[in-house]
Amino acid sequence: MNEDNQLTITPIAYARNGFSQKFGIPRQSREGSVLLTRIVFEPEFRVREALRGIEGYSHLWLIWGFHQNRPMEKWSPTVRPPRLGGNSREGVFATRSPYRPNPLGLSSVRLARVEETPHEGLTLLVAGADLMDGTPIYDIKPYLSFSDAHPDAQNGFAEATKDFRLPVRWGVPAPDIETQMALEEILSQKPVPAYQDAPERIYGLEYNHFEVHFSVSDEAVTVLRIIEK
Amino acid sequence: MNEDNQLTITPIAYARNGFSQKFGIPRQSREGSVLLTRIVFEPEFRVREALRGIEGYSHLWLIWGFHQNRPMEKWSPTVRPPRLGGNSREGVFATRSPYRPNPLGLSSVRLARVEETPHEGLTLLVAGADLMDGTPIYDIKPYLSFSDAHPDAQNGFAEATKDFRLPVRWGVPAPDIETQMALEEILSQKPVPAYQDAPERIYGLEYNHFEVHFSVSDEAVTVLRIIEK
Repeated sequence: MNEDNQLTITPIAYARNGFSQKFGIPRQSREGSVLLTRIVFEPEFRVREALRGIEGYSHLWLIWGFHQNRPMEKWSPTVRPPRLGGNSREGVFATRSPYRPNPLGLSSVRLARVEETPHEGLTLLVAGADLMDGTPIYDIKPYLSFSDAHPDAQNGFAEATKDFRLPVRWGVPAPDIETQMALEEILSQKPVPAYQDAPERIYGLEYNHFEVHFSVSDEAVTVLRIIEK
Repeated sequence: MNEDNQLTITPIAYARNGFSQKFGIPRQSREGSVLLTRIVFEPEFRVREALRGIEGYSHLWLIWGFHQNRPMEKWSPTVRPPRLGGNSREGVFATRSPYRPNPLGLSSVRLARVEETPHEGLTLLVAGADLMDGTPIYDIKPYLSFSDAHPDAQNGFAEATKDFRLPVRWGVPAPDIETQMALEEILSQKPVPAYQDAPERIYGLEYNHFEVHFSVSDEAVTVLRIIEK
């Protein structure tokens, strides 16, 4: 391998949110998301001035690392996007797959607010992040509508997945309205392996201090049980 | 420095275009750009299957490296964005400045076409890239309008720079229509250091095999001479 222009990058911050496991995390950030992530800067980058003017931007880019990739799994030229049922193979550069030559993720998020905490200095609260808790963040950039927004872009095979959304039915009461909204956003994306199509199966995911059990059919996701941990 | 989650990334490809020097490169990619860049994959990543399905996308993301940063220049918490006249200091994470903790660039580009060349295999021709010739590219991702396009995003201080464009006057004939269009796109962005305001000064930039001399006033950029090298 040619080592010219290899670059070693260091986390400037970490994502903190209720997604303690990879399973269930929305696959792309969406406008209107209620899922909040706190961006906590590493001590070396906890510099108030580095955020000057950032609250003038409604959206930010995060460049982050797929740090939960299974270490032995190398990138492959083609991947099976889960939303396509796992049967179609697409080129890795035509997907947002985590298993890429350089395991970098990219998400646009809405900047909800800049918030000072007692121990972490200035933090950023962002909505719509498709990152799990503990994700290392390597860069934060302002979103510039005049260079970054292409609302009429053609979405290739991903177009078929754009409006995917299952209704969420509650077989048990939701613990509170915020958790309800967050879980509906998560579950409506059918967070189960693509190749599994078993309406009788009960799945579980963790969100904040809740363990959520649910089942999935072609028509809906049904919440069966919520256990507070 | 905490070395957890440090990541060493390797170029998968390089940008090839007429920008042999940093000076003059548009500061952000823009829709409608006529500036073409060829993305040439490194031998290890020259794998036809890795691009399968990519031509279904009209736009792509490039994550690339600011490899021309002056090596001794460290990142600074604040920077002086050139378009603001160099007088205002903004936080580095509120700018697209090259001098950031991790020197990664991000550009959305239009995919003009996938093109096979005799020696380089499949290459991507993209429009709107704000990269200089030889820029290392670390990742290519499809642009997804439903997660990436926020046309109404608030642009912070960059809003003031959004429509910046000086008219370009030709004191000499343009060599050909393609070069003319490319140079007008480049020169209209006033590619001179922000702190210089000298209408009598003659600047030079290189584009393809041309050396271009021009002057800049508050009202226009004037092309004074074009030398074919």
